[in-house]
Amino acid sequence: MTGARGLRGAGGLGVALAVAPAPDGGRWEALVKRPTIADIARQAGVTKAAVSFALNGQPGVSAATRERILAIAQEVGFQPNSAARALSDGRAGAFGLVIDRPARMLGVEPWFTQLISGIQGELSGDHTALLFTMAEDQDAEIAMYRSWWAQRRVDGVFLVDLQIGDRRVGVLEQLRMPAVVIGDPAGAGSLPAVWQDDAAATRAVVEYLAGAGHRRIARVTGIPRFWHTKIRTDAFRAAAQAVGVQAVLLEGDYTGENGAAATRQLLLGAEPPTAIVYDNDLMAVSGLGAAQQAGVEVPAELSIVAWDDSAFCEVVHPPLTALTRDVAAYGAHAARVLVQAAAGAEVGHYQEAPAVLTVRGSTGPVPREPARRPGRQPAGGSPATAPAARPAR
Amino acid sequence: MTGARGLRGAGGLGVALAVAPAPDGGRWEALVKRPTIADIARQAGVTKAAVSFALNGQPGVSAATRERILAIAQEVGFQPNSAARALSDGRAGAFGLVIDRPARMLGVEPWFTQLISGIQGELSGDHTALLFTMAEDQDAEIAMYRSWWAQRRVDGVFLVDLQIGDRRVGVLEQLRMPAVVIGDPAGAGSLPAVWQDDAAATRAVVEYLAGAGHRRIARVTGIPRFWHTKIRTDAFRAAAQAVGVQAVLLEGDYTGENGAAATRQLLLGAEPPTAIVYDNDLMAVSGLGAAQQAGVEVPAELSIVAWDDSAFCEVVHPPLTALTRDVAAYGAHAARVLVQAAAGAEVGHYQEAPAVLTVRGSTGPVPREPARRPGRQPAGGSPATAPAARPAR
Repeated sequence: MTGARGLRGAGGLGVALAVAPAPDGGRWEALVKRPTIADIARQAGVTKAAVSFALNGQPGVSAATRERILAIAQEVGFQPNSAARALSDGRAGAFGLVIDRPARMLGVEPWFTQLISGIQGELSGDHTALLFTMAEDQDAEIAMYRSWWAQRRVDGVFLVDLQIGDRRVGVLEQLRMPAVVIGDPAGAGSLPAVWQDDAAATRAVVEYLAGAGHRRIARVTGIPRFWHTKIRTDAFRAAAQAVGVQAVLLEGDYTGENGAAATRQLLLGAEPPTAIVYDNDLMAVSGLGAAQQAGVEVPAELSIVAWDDSAFCEVVHPPLTALTRDVAAYGAHAARVLVQAAAGAEVGHYQEAPAVLTVRGSTGPVPREPARRPGRQPAGGSPATAPAARPAR
Repeated sequence: MTGARGLRGAGGLGVALAVAPAPDGGRWEALVKRPTIADIARQAGVTKAAVSFALNGQPGVSAATRERILAIAQEVGFQPNSAARALSDGRAGAFGLVIDRPARMLGVEPWFTQLISGIQGELSGDHTALLFTMAEDQDAEIAMYRSWWAQRRVDGVFLVDLQIGDRRVGVLEQLRMPAVVIGDPAGAGSLPAVWQDDAAATRAVVEYLAGAGHRRIARVTGIPRFWHTKIRTDAFRAAAQAVGVQAVLLEGDYTGENGAAATRQLLLGAEPPTAIVYDNDLMAVSGLGAAQQAGVEVPAELSIVAWDDSAFCEVVHPPLTALTRDVAAYGAHAARVLVQAAAGAEVGHYQEAPAVLTVRGSTGPVPREPARRPGRQPAGGSPATAPAARPAR
């Protein structure tokens, strides 16, 4: 397989320009016998050119011959070689999706698989495949776009996890490569965005918690360089100010380790919050576990809210109040927009309905006493007055 | 985009046979200017044929001209059109992976994303892409294989979730399409399998629990038609018999709903088990939630073990004892085998190390008293003698 690297491909193009593909000349043809133009020609008693004209809807064959040829093509299960098709109509028949989050993190985020399933569902009806891959960083991702586009491997790409000052946007604009941003238009440049109003959803959470009497609310963020993180954080601050509650912000990275550590840090602080909003399901489930381990009752002493509701939010005890959205539908809409963009249509932004708050057992009215702080002594207080750390259950 | 369906592609083949692709004739060429053979020819002051010969390593140009042409090609960043390359060398440069589990279930299983990330990591070094898609059922999946193979969209496929009497194996054998089974060789026919000894891992779990004094152990299975489910179930029965403990089997389907329902059913039974082994992480986390909701202490009254350790197993409280394996490495090995198979090499089965048991807080010694059964009255007993159902905490 090493021969696939370097200039072998370039040589291949030379051959393709020099000669028409021999129906039985390929390596795979030697392994399996697919019906070819030649087979149809033989069976119809016409030339290969006539078959080509007929299948192509070009003049040069009579109506009767054309019909006979089409019938035989259907009968033998003739399917055009996708490579030949791509050469002729310039369409790769595939869209690309590159993700540059660490693979380990990706594996635990239901969000991406839901998104992919939505994209797939839409594209399968259009006989378009999804090329899905992971890149180490944005440079690698950009290199992949250039290579895909130069080699016509894809007809367009989905862009996720848009960052502040994202370099991918400019590259795609320059390449004039059809692309759809899955996320806020704020950083999408001239690219169409399929997006949800995360600020509105954030406000809904803050107002719900403030309404339940919470006066000090924490947010454990996702990776700060992402636009969606910034938008939620800004909205969190603004909403807290608007309803007159204190906002506490802690940077997170979507991992379980981080969710637990942030929770412990908040509970051990001088003024622990009575509610914590986490930026993904794994951090929220982990925060619940950390609170339970510290003997802090959820929701009696601490309310917990998760962004991006998932099956795991539903099944833990207590089940987590979460922001629910139809991620698969989101993916399907993005696919629809990209199909249009790749077909050359002028497409604008497409706004989804915002996530809705699904209230479950992990949130409740503000506790009369703040959450217990295991192992921490009140400032200036003696050990005797400190609330006893409860053993892990 | 509707024109992409039906016979348009067939017409495309006709065009490809009739004329060489015009470098500037494609729809995308109109949008973006890629360096072409013609550009190189112009810059080098030679014919396009000479460029083609030089890039292709064919005779017809002098050594000096060849070097000059290659230098220009590199300088302008010439990359061959993948479609033309596929026509000439018969290689699609992509492998396929079709999954026919429901999308909703797929979204919650970290296993698949880990597997894909492992496959990707291996293939990216080989400049091979992964075509990933979902199918409604096995018929749809088989139709996709036939279509991919006929259209040379892929050079081979990964086969997952092998079923008893799986029809895909025979179809792939018949097509002589390179394929690698990710799973036990038992149902793989003549296809190479990359597999782990699930029976050994199952025995390790049963022996560990029996060693902790458990005498009645339940298993909530995955979907029974899958080979891996059957292999684990058979091994579970045999191992229980070998160490002299009772095996209780309940059919599951990997969903959280099912994990909770099975757990309630087991805890409410006449003789509740003191340990439950679940076939995936979501059912196990859900089982933990259901037990906690019923007031059953884990592990004091019930031990819980999960197949396929995940981040969620680590962060719940108590963290779950689980069978851990390097799923990404599994995917990488499968990719390596498929690369060899697609290159025409004779490849055999490849056995991975079995999963290892990671003992965490959810398992412990057998309780003195069986788990409490909320809402259930002992046979023949009066309500007064029934153990009080404890309120959900």
